[in-house]
Amino acid sequence: MRFFSDNAAPVHPRVFAAMAAADQVDTAYDGDALSRALDARFSILFGREVAVLWVPSGTAANALALAALCQPYGGVICHRDAHLQNDECGAPEFYTHGAKLMLGEGSGAKLTPAEVLRLADGIANDVHRVQPHALSITNATEYGCVYTPDEVAALGSLAEARGWGFHMDGARFANAVATLDCTPAELTQYVDVLSFGFVKNGGLSAEALILFNPALADATARRRKRAGHLLSKGRYLAAQIHAMLDDDLWLETARAANEHAQTLAKAAKGRLISPVEANELFLRMTPAEAAALRAQGFDFYDWAAGEIRLVTHWASPAPEVEALARAIEAL
Amino acid sequence: MRFFSDNAAPVHPRVFAAMAAADQVDTAYDGDALSRALDARFSILFGREVAVLWVPSGTAANALALAALCQPYGGVICHRDAHLQNDECGAPEFYTHGAKLMLGEGSGAKLTPAEVLRLADGIANDVHRVQPHALSITNATEYGCVYTPDEVAALGSLAEARGWGFHMDGARFANAVATLDCTPAELTQYVDVLSFGFVKNGGLSAEALILFNPALADATARRRKRAGHLLSKGRYLAAQIHAMLDDDLWLETARAANEHAQTLAKAAKGRLISPVEANELFLRMTPAEAAALRAQGFDFYDWAAGEIRLVTHWASPAPEVEALARAIEAL
Amino acid sequence: MRFFSDNAAPVHPRVFAAMAAADQVDTAYDGDALSRALDARFSILFGREVAVLWVPSGTAANALALAALCQPYGGVICHRDAHLQNDECGAPEFYTHGAKLMLGEGSGAKLTPAEVLRLADGIANDVHRVQPHALSITNATEYGCVYTPDEVAALGSLAEARGWGFHMDGARFANAVATLDCTPAELTQYVDVLSFGFVKNGGLSAEALILFNPALADATARRRKRAGHLLSKGRYLAAQIHAMLDDDLWLETARAANEHAQTLAKAAKGRLISPVEANELFLRMTPAEAAALRAQGFDFYDWAAGEIRLVTHWASPAPEVEALARAIEAL
Amino acid sequence: MRFFSDNAAPVHPRVFAAMAAADQVDTAYDGDALSRALDARFSILFGREVAVLWVPSGTAANALALAALCQPYGGVICHRDAHLQNDECGAPEFYTHGAKLMLGEGSGAKLTPAEVLRLADGIANDVHRVQPHALSITNATEYGCVYTPDEVAALGSLAEARGWGFHMDGARFANAVATLDCTPAELTQYVDVLSFGFVKNGGLSAEALILFNPALADATARRRKRAGHLLSKGRYLAAQIHAMLDDDLWLETARAANEHAQTLAKAAKGRLISPVEANELFLRMTPAEAAALRAQGFDFYDWAAGEIRLVTHWASPAPEVEALARAIEAL
Repeated sequence: MRFFSDNAAPVHPRVFAAMAAADQVDTAYDGDALSRALDARFSILFGREVAVLWVPSGTAANALALAALCQPYGGVICHRDAHLQNDECGAPEFYTHGAKLMLGEGSGAKLTPAEVLRLADGIANDVHRVQPHALSITNATEYGCVYTPDEVAALGSLAEARGWGFHMDGARFANAVATLDCTPAELTQYVDVLSFGFVKNGGLSAEALILFNPALADATARRRKRAGHLLSKGRYLAAQIHAMLDDDLWLETARAANEHAQTLAKAAKGRLISPVEANELFLRMTPAEAAALRAQGFDFYDWAAGEIRLVTHWASPAPEVEALARAIEAL
Repeated sequence: MRFFSDNAAPVHPRVFAAMAAADQVDTAYDGDALSRALDARFSILFGREVAVLWVPSGTAANALALAALCQPYGGVICHRDAHLQNDECGAPEFYTHGAKLMLGEGSGAKLTPAEVLRLADGIANDVHRVQPHALSITNATEYGCVYTPDEVAALGSLAEARGWGFHMDGARFANAVATLDCTPAELTQYVDVLSFGFVKNGGLSAEALILFNPALADATARRRKRAGHLLSKGRYLAAQIHAMLDDDLWLETARAANEHAQTLAKAAKGRLISPVEANELFLRMTPAEAAALRAQGFDFYDWAAGEIRLVTHWASPAPEVEALARAIEAL
Repeated sequence: MRFFSDNAAPVHPRVFAAMAAADQVDTAYDGDALSRALDARFSILFGREVAVLWVPSGTAANALALAALCQPYGGVICHRDAHLQNDECGAPEFYTHGAKLMLGEGSGAKLTPAEVLRLADGIANDVHRVQPHALSITNATEYGCVYTPDEVAALGSLAEARGWGFHMDGARFANAVATLDCTPAELTQYVDVLSFGFVKNGGLSAEALILFNPALADATARRRKRAGHLLSKGRYLAAQIHAMLDDDLWLETARAANEHAQTLAKAAKGRLISPVEANELFLRMTPAEAAALRAQGFDFYDWAAGEIRLVTHWASPAPEVEALARAIEAL
Repeated sequence: MRFFSDNAAPVHPRVFAAMAAADQVDTAYDGDALSRALDARFSILFGREVAVLWVPSGTAANALALAALCQPYGGVICHRDAHLQNDECGAPEFYTHGAKLMLGEGSGAKLTPAEVLRLADGIANDVHRVQPHALSITNATEYGCVYTPDEVAALGSLAEARGWGFHMDGARFANAVATLDCTPAELTQYVDVLSFGFVKNGGLSAEALILFNPALADATARRRKRAGHLLSKGRYLAAQIHAMLDDDLWLETARAANEHAQTLAKAAKGRLISPVEANELFLRMTPAEAAALRAQGFDFYDWAAGEIRLVTHWASPAPEVEALARAIEAL
C-alpha cells in the first residue's frame, strides 16, 4: 500500500483513451491540431489570452519559466524548501545559465511579502551583487499548504512593483484550486508563468507551461526545442492535457486525492506538522511507529528525523486509505 | 498520403500495449523494474556491458551524449548536414555549455577519416583555438545513407587514436542495422555513446542513450535530471523500449520502412540524389512535378531548390507507397 | 627584429606616464573620476551619446558585445576567418551561453551584404534552426583589409532591417580610421557595439567597449563584473585610454604602424595575398625564402602553407622595417 | 583620509618599476620569459610543484578555480558571507556553468568541519539533489579573521576524504601569512587551488592562480583564454608578481597593512565585532558616531546597521591611521 508519491500513480483511463484516439499519422512536433488548440483552450480557462507549451516534465516547465523571467546575471527569490532549489539537480541554474536562487524562510514552505522584502532589501543595488529578477512560489507548496488568491496577489503585486517576473510552480496547482474552490484565474493574479502540472494528477508525461504574457512564447518555444523538450510526437502530450481538461477531470482527480488526504489528516490530527491543504501530509512519527506502519504494509517516505511524508493521489484505493487512517490512530 | 516525416507515424500497437501493461502504481522516476532492467537488456543486445538511460527525445539523447564527451571549451567534429548542427536549435551548445561544432563535408552527409583529419589537422594545438574533443556521426545519415561497420570502425579508431569521444546519432539506427543486416554490436565498434532511436520507428516518446563506457552514467544521469528529462513516470518510457526490443520489433518496423523506401527508389531511379539505404529519399524534381504529385494527394517536404524529400515509415500504407511509385514514374 | 605581432609591442611612454599620474589612492572599480569621464569623452569623439566600459582584453570586449546582442538560442553571422571564431577559444560561445557562430566567406576576411543574405536566407525561420541575432565584422580585418564607411553602412543597414545587432571588432579600428582618413563616427554607422582596441596600438591592458545604445550598459556592466573584468584598480585602465585619446595619440600610433606596413608592401608587391590597408601583410613565400629571412634575423608568423604574416606596430624601428623591405626585395 | 578599501590603494613603486623594466618588445600572451618563470618561482615558494596562471582580477581567479574543481551539476560549500557568494555578481555560477553555492554559517566568516559536515550530510545522495564537489574558504576571511594552518588542514582533510576539491580565496592571503607568521606552504595544506592576491597588497592588475595539482593547468589555461583573461601583454602582469615576490615585498606590505589595523584595533577595543587578524576591522558604531568621524575627514564603509568597516593598506599614511585611532577613542 503505497503512500510514497503521486508520481507513482497510474495514468487516468480517460487520458489513455485520449492518447489512443490521437494515435494516427499527424504533423510532427507541435504542428498537430491538438497542440495548436491549447492556447485557445487555456485562454478560456484563465479568462485571458495565454500562450501554452506542453513539456514532458515539471522540472522542464519550471526551468523554462525561470529562463523566461530571469537573466543569467539575475536571481530568483524562492523558498528554502522549494522544489526548484532542492529537487531538480540544478535545473534552474542550467536553464537560466547560472542565475542565483535566493532562499527565503516561512512555515509550510510559504513565503510572505515581508519575508520577500527582507531578502530583497538586504541586497545593495550595485554591480557586485546579483539582483532579484523573479519571484517563484509553489502552490500547493512542498509542505502541502496552499496560498490563497489574496496571498498570491499580495506577492504578485510586490513582484510587479519591483519589476520582477512572477512564477508559480503548479505541480499540484489542481490540488490547490480544489482546496480553495476558486477559479484558476483567481489563483493566478499577477502570475507571469505557471507550471500547470498534470502528471501527478492523472497524466502520463504532459505538463502545461502557461505564459500569461504571450510575448514570452517565441523565446520559450526556442528554449524548449534547444532543451530537447519539443517531442516529435507532441500530439500524444497535447491529447493528455485535453483529456485532463475535458469535463474538469483535473479537478475531479485533485479532489479525490485531497479527500484521501483529509481522511488521513483526521486520523493523524495530533501529529501534523503543517495544515493539510492538498494531498501531502507531514507527520511527527517515531522510527518505531514508522516501522510498525511499514510492518502492516504501508510504504512512505522518511522526511526528516522523526517525520514522515504521506502522499495520496487520485487512484489511491479508498480501503487502503482507510486502513492507513486506522493504523495511524492505533499507534 | 503523407511522406513527410517518420515522426508523423503512429505508435506501434505493441508499444501501446506495453504502456498499458505498465499502467499501475510503481516507483517513480527510473526506480521501477522496467527502467532498472534496461542496462542488462541492452548489454545482451550489444554483447558488452553498457549503461542505458531513457530520454523522451532524440535531441535530448544527442545533447546529453555530447555533454558526456566534450568539455565546454572543446569542439565536436560532425558533418555540415548533421541534425546536431541544423535541427536542434543549438541543443549541443546548450548542453555542452558552449562547445563548438566543427563542420565537415562529404556526400550523403557522411564523413570520412580523410575529411576528419583535414579538419582536425587545420587546428593548431594552442590555447587560442578550440580543440576537438569528440567526433559525432549519424547512422543512418540525414541523407538516408549508411555507414558500414568498417566505415564506423575506421572513424572510431581515428577518434580513439586522437583521444576523442565517439558519438553516433542513431535516430535511424534501426534502419541502418536493417539495411546492413549486421548486428548492433558490429555497427558500434569504438562508439562511446549511441543515441538509439525508437520514436521514428514505432515508439511514442522513448529513446535509449547507450553508454558503452558505464563510467559515464553517473554524470549523465545527473545531467539528465538537471535538464528535466528524468520523467517522473519513467516506467512508461521503459515499457516502450522493452516492447520495441521484444522479438526484434525494432528491426521488423525498420525493415518495413526500408522496403517502402526501396519501392519508391526503384520508381525514382533517375532522380536520386543519394543512394537509398534507409527510409529517406532525396529526389531531383521540378516545382511543376512536385505540384503534380501534390495535386494527386501526396504530401512531402521541399528540400532544396529542385529537390524533394520523401520519408517512409513502418506504418506507411503499402497501397499509398505503390501509388506514389506509379505517380513518380508517370511524371 | 620582430614582425610577429603588434601585441608584442611595448607600451607608449605617454600611456605609462598617465598610469603613473593615476597612481594615488582613489575609488575602487570604476568609481574613479577617470573611469567616470569615459562616457562623455567618447560621446564627443563619436558625435553621439555612447556608454563606455573598459575591459582588459579584446576577447572580453568582443564576447561581452556579443552577449549584449545575441540570446543564447541565437546566432552571430561573422566571417570564417574572424578572430571571434578562430582565436578566442570559444569566448563568444561562453559569454553568450552557447550561441552559434554562422560563418561566411569573402576575400580579405570581409563579408558583403550578398554573402550575409546568402547565409541568412538559407536558414528557415522555424524553431528547429538557430536564427541569426547579430552580425559581427572586424575592421580592420584579420587579413589587414578595411571596410569603408559605405561598406560598413551597407552591412549595418542590412542588420537593422533584419532586426539584428551589429558589432564591430575594432582591435585595429585605429588602423582602419587612419587608412581611411575618416572620422570614427563615419566608420561606425549602424554599429551597436564597438570593441575599440588600444592594446595593440600603444596601450597596456585597456580596451574600450563602446555601446552606441546606452540602454545596453546596465546589463553589460553586470556581465563584465560577473566575468571578472571589473578590475578593482580600474583607474589605471581608464588612464591608459585617456592617454591614447589625448591629442589623438591613437591615430598617431596607428599611422606609424600603417606607414611601416606600406614600406613593406611596396617591397613585396608581387607577393601580396590581400591589399595592405592596415598594419598586417600576408605574403606568398616559399619555405626556403622564409628561412632566408629568418637567417637574417627577421621573426614572423608562418600563416598557411607558402604564406607568411608580417605585422608592424607604432614602435617598429624604422631601420628594421627598411632592412626587412630590402631583404624581401632581394629574395 | 580613506579607510574604505585596500583596492583603493596605489601601486607599489617597485611594482611600477618592474612593469617599466618589462616594457620592451617581447612575446605576446604568456609566452614571455617572465610569465614562463612563474611555475618555478611559486614551486619554490610553496615547496612543491605547482602550475601558475596570472589573471587580472580576484574574481577571475576564484571563478576559474571553482570551474576547475566543480562540475556544472555540482555544488561548492562556502560561507554565507563569502565574497564568492556576495560580491562577484554570480561569477562562480557563470564560470562553473551553473553550479550551486551551498552556504554555511560561522562567526568571523569562518567555516568549521562540523558546519561543513552538517551541510553536506543534509544532502541525500540521489540524482535530485545537487551534490557538493568542492569546498571553498577565504583566508583571511571577509571579516578580517584568519584560519590557522591547523584549521585549514582540518577542512582540507575533510574535503579530501569526501572527494571534494579544496579552494582557498587568498585575496588577502598575504595578510593571513603575515599574521600567522607561518610559511605559505603551511597555510595551504590540502589546498588544490589558491587565488593568491596581489592587487590589494601593492599590485596593479595581477593575481596568481596557484594550481597545486598541475594536471589542472591545461583545462584552466583554456578556460582563462575563453574568459578573455589571457591578456595579450601578459609580461606586464608577470612582472608585477615577480616584483611582489622579490625580497618578500608581499609580506612587507601585508605586515604594514596589518600593523595599521592593530593600531586601530587597540583604539577600538570595545567596539570590535570580530577579532582583528588581518587588515580589516568591523566596529559597532552608531550613525551619530560614524557621522562624527566623517565630519573629521575619515571615509569608510557602512557595513550593516550600527556597524562600520575600516580597511587599512600598505600605503595608509601612519599619521592618518593615528588620527583615526585618536578619533575613535574620543568618541
